Amino acid sequence: VPLPEKALIAQIRRMANSGKRARSAKNSTQNLITGIGDDCAVLRITPGRELLVTTDFSLEGIHFRRDWHPAESVGHRCLARGLSDIAAMGGDPVAAFLSLALPRDVPQAWVRSFIRGWMTLAKKYDVPLAGGDTAQSPNKVLADIIVIGSAPKGKAVLRSTARAGDRIFVSGELGGSAAAVAELMAKPTKKPNPRDYPRHFYPEPRIKLGRILRENLVSAMIDLSDGLSTDLAHICEESGVGAKIASALIPRARVGKPAREVAHDLALHGGEDYELLFTVPQGKRVPARIAGVTLTEIGAITRSQKILLQDENGVTRRLPAKGWEHFR
Amino acid sequence: VPLPEKALIAQIRRMANSGKRARSAKNSTQNLITGIGDDCAVLRITPGRELLVTTDFSLEGIHFRRDWHPAESVGHRCLARGLSDIAAMGGDPVAAFLSLALPRDVPQAWVRSFIRGWMTLAKKYDVPLAGGDTAQSPNKVLADIIVIGSAPKGKAVLRSTARAGDRIFVSGELGGSAAAVAELMAKPTKKPNPRDYPRHFYPEPRIKLGRILRENLVSAMIDLSDGLSTDLAHICEESGVGAKIASALIPRARVGKPAREVAHDLALHGGEDYELLFTVPQGKRVPARIAGVTLTEIGAITRSQKILLQDENGVTRRLPAKGWEHFR
Repeated sequence: VPLPEKALIAQIRRMANSGKRARSAKNSTQNLITGIGDDCAVLRITPGRELLVTTDFSLEGIHFRRDWHPAESVGHRCLARGLSDIAAMGGDPVAAFLSLALPRDVPQAWVRSFIRGWMTLAKKYDVPLAGGDTAQSPNKVLADIIVIGSAPKGKAVLRSTARAGDRIFVSGELGGSAAAVAELMAKPTKKPNPRDYPRHFYPEPRIKLGRILRENLVSAMIDLSDGLSTDLAHICEESGVGAKIASALIPRARVGKPAREVAHDLALHGGEDYELLFTVPQGKRVPARIAGVTLTEIGAITRSQKILLQDENGVTRRLPAKGWEHFR
Repeated sequence: VPLPEKALIAQIRRMANSGKRARSAKNSTQNLITGIGDDCAVLRITPGRELLVTTDFSLEGIHFRRDWHPAESVGHRCLARGLSDIAAMGGDPVAAFLSLALPRDVPQAWVRSFIRGWMTLAKKYDVPLAGGDTAQSPNKVLADIIVIGSAPKGKAVLRSTARAGDRIFVSGELGGSAAAVAELMAKPTKKPNPRDYPRHFYPEPRIKLGRILRENLVSAMIDLSDGLSTDLAHICEESGVGAKIASALIPRARVGKPAREVAHDLALHGGEDYELLFTVPQGKRVPARIAGVTLTEIGAITRSQKILLQDENGVTRRLPAKGWEHFR
């Protein structure tokens, strides 16, 4: 069933308006003046706050597969990627934009489920859909999402401000998302149940946690989208420092049915967990949990620019950044 | 030659940094605190200003063709689309974001030319490249661009504020972009010279004009991206009004070599001229030119919600919105 572009725009506009009503009742720190239906969205930013902007592609065949991911999961994951970037700065989300290109063969039901997945997450974090673009695509579903956020002036947490001696923490457990991909690759015909792999199909952006961490606790922060080894390298590169972490300390996710701990390599290199990786200056006390999420110390920032991993036998080696390659 | 994603990011980052240096020297109304290299870009918006956000796809096969458009033109047009949306609100551009997905077969030289086309336009309007995303695409070049702008609080010009009795104007001449597409379609083997069709290959966003028009002159405004008949319908729909325009008054572009006036239908329905269509309350004087661009009165807003065209014989008919269909 071909999806006429007009119907899609009308549908997205209805969803956006329902979001707008919900938002205007509660949200006082920011203001969506004009949303879908003009050349630009008009947003008001509270004085004394800085603007945060992030954009993320979600491309069929690269970031998701229509035969693997329910449409609702695809919509959720698109928005979660952007919200997670806002969380990684310690920001508050203000509004989201969706550019969506669809091939002719995508059924309307798929689009409805996609939008439902998006809107359920958007309502949870009070993020109105303020605009975007639609187009017909040659043969794949292509989405680009933009999330605008804000943070008090000078309070956004950067990647480039880790210092030697800082302790390194991660939130939650790692490798749960990559474990779902490994499962899908190994048994393409027997789809895993999304409920057994929530961190892959419905990842939770750590907005609340990021907001609390930004208040005089952390020195640098990033979200774990590419995998621990790669994202730790990003922090080190931007900050001009090194790191030493201990394999035994990395919290591994338990996923599947029956639930079992993921392999060590998935926790170390697997992407798309959307947990937070952050550094804390010496002497600051870090609670065991914040906003319901466990925090685990895994190592420390070093002056030397090497990134080292101490394995479970006490042997220390260079840790390669095995960048998350999606489904390639 | 496959383009490694890292090389692309490094290249874009270099271009962005050169833009940032150029910007910080001149631009005082806004401030890019952190650009490419963190989870989000951090922007400072001058107090008393509202934020404008626009997103636009530029997809190979839909918005451009690699065999028709030089890479430099593709880069220019991507950014011009977004800047034109900012112009249509009467806004000042603040920063741009580029999400670019490339198939493996795109040569590095193509990417370099694309970025050169983008950056030449970006420098002209002092718009730093503040971030974006990169990905590998299955088989087509996919770009999504985001432009952030600002306008003094309450001064952004909407589509929804035209009133019966307002006079309707367009800037520049129309149909020049569609004429190039018509030429490309008619003679696919004999490519037109981009210099003979500048409005198609290197359209100029009307930033300066829009900024002057917003100061107590216009009641509503839109940019002509979909074509006059469709964009006029957008203004009428959003404002709950109608319009009557006269065919003989529509300024037609002169393009090609030797230069000749475009067909009437191209000026009326052809898209991507990126001129401004705006309405002016009765009694306000409109100069013949602003910022070097000719302004032409083509009709008036009416109370009845019909959109009418008076032809050159004085006969008045309903004007259908023949939406711009790109290359479909």
